[in-house]
Amino acid sequence: MALKQISSNKCFGGLQKVFEHDSVELNCKMKFAVYLPPKAETGKCPALYWLSGLTCTEQNFISKSGYHQSASEHGLVVIAPDTSPRGCNIKGEDESWDFGTGAGFYVDATEDPWKTNYRMYSYVTEELPQLINANFPVDPQRMSIFGHSMGGHGALICALKNPGKYKSVSAFAPICNPVLCPWGKKAFSGYLGTDQSKWKAYDATHLVKSYPGSQLDILIDQGKDDQFLLDGQLLPDNFIAACTEKKIPVVFRLQEGYDHSYYFIATFITDHIRHHAKYLNA
Amino acid sequence: MALKQISSNKCFGGLQKVFEHDSVELNCKMKFAVYLPPKAETGKCPALYWLSGLTCTEQNFISKSGYHQSASEHGLVVIAPDTSPRGCNIKGEDESWDFGTGAGFYVDATEDPWKTNYRMYSYVTEELPQLINANFPVDPQRMSIFGHSMGGHGALICALKNPGKYKSVSAFAPICNPVLCPWGKKAFSGYLGTDQSKWKAYDATHLVKSYPGSQLDILIDQGKDDQFLLDGQLLPDNFIAACTEKKIPVVFRLQEGYDHSYYFIATFITDHIRHHAKYLNA
Repeated sequence: MALKQISSNKCFGGLQKVFEHDSVELNCKMKFAVYLPPKAETGKCPALYWLSGLTCTEQNFISKSGYHQSASEHGLVVIAPDTSPRGCNIKGEDESWDFGTGAGFYVDATEDPWKTNYRMYSYVTEELPQLINANFPVDPQRMSIFGHSMGGHGALICALKNPGKYKSVSAFAPICNPVLCPWGKKAFSGYLGTDQSKWKAYDATHLVKSYPGSQLDILIDQGKDDQFLLDGQLLPDNFIAACTEKKIPVVFRLQEGYDHSYYFIATFITDHIRHHAKYLNA
Repeated sequence: MALKQISSNKCFGGLQKVFEHDSVELNCKMKFAVYLPPKAETGKCPALYWLSGLTCTEQNFISKSGYHQSASEHGLVVIAPDTSPRGCNIKGEDESWDFGTGAGFYVDATEDPWKTNYRMYSYVTEELPQLINANFPVDPQRMSIFGHSMGGHGALICALKNPGKYKSVSAFAPICNPVLCPWGKKAFSGYLGTDQSKWKAYDATHLVKSYPGSQLDILIDQGKDDQFLLDGQLLPDNFIAACTEKKIPVVFRLQEGYDHSYYFIATFITDHIRHHAKYLNA
């Protein structure tokens, strides 16, 4: 599992690095970013995974979210993968901004031609953690996950499909009920085919209804002026209703005047990192 | 002086906006970013001008520096212009990344074909402040300036050439002695011609030697692993020697392991905004 370092920049006393590797799950080269806080120089740290939204690479979060100060203070290694395989020469992979490249939706595709490469679910939950645990000073037992929009969807389903794997989960403007929203219908029909039962296995609102697991403290921030909320792409109300019914605690904060941008994320990122640090450093 | 709003995003309770206008000085359309902190809703705030470095637009600083939290807390309106005129159809304007587009060097060009458009000094010190004072809730008497690299050079010369105009000045990795460094020689010979006395009028190290002005508290952060420092583009030692001789107080902090990137700026931006707030809110 050879890693090639692409960049390394000092930031808030730690190091923001980007690496490239040949992904076995995705059958292509993948980049990921990893932040090593000062504490990582002298011991193992918890690992916090960030999943980005549509059209993003590993760069958007590390350059725009302003997360480094709190990650440095709380001593968290923060990992941010790319949002899909790239350069797979699949016909149509670059045709839309909400499907294919930059839009892997954190699922394992079952349909041709996507199934050979589009396995972001297994990449994020299996291959990447194994790579991180093997190459960086992280404690494999202390892992949490969060994300934005499509990445918020990814964080929620990874946590709900793996009870106990993550200490905590949070999301910014997550796609909460993809089986019912335009983005989700387009992605799931393309990657998973027409059998909607396969869709539900990657839908947070459905997963909550049958969540058998342990305590899961979910934090969600949502901008009230988020165009995609108004367009019915995110559907947080459905998710909250399902959590309420199942008595799963979720803190949902509707933020007046905020939108879907990284300005919204930057404003509340410290709260989210504090949320995770509470569990990761417990 | 019609302003066209390009974008507006809520961030740390304030609004990060970008506007476009027809610049009289530069004879072209120019964009600038302005952050209005929550305090700007109820009263006039001080104005802090940021000047960016080579290849930047108004976007780099507002999306990568993480300045919003401290600007919001200290109640400062922060303005970030672009780094040169654009789209002027001057032969060669886009040929190099360190001259022409994205590289206006904050001077008023005297040479053809640049002198018609390349008047960034007057734009930054006259036209933009007049525009800001006329259109935003700012106190014209309370203004400070800071910048990075070429923008650090810009901030230093604007302050040194206008004693009393700015309450404070600071810089990240500034080009301190452009008449002696490759970037400066290329830019000044192109914009100002071969008469080196004209160059010195835009060189911070020379300007300090004849600075008649009032108290000026200068803060400079410089990454010790900054490739451009090692390449002799920045020359801070010359500037510090000149300040020492003239007994002008300058705090110069050499930061171990840091480079020229926005990760370096993000790490110390709060210190700089606090530095300015001390004088602007005095």
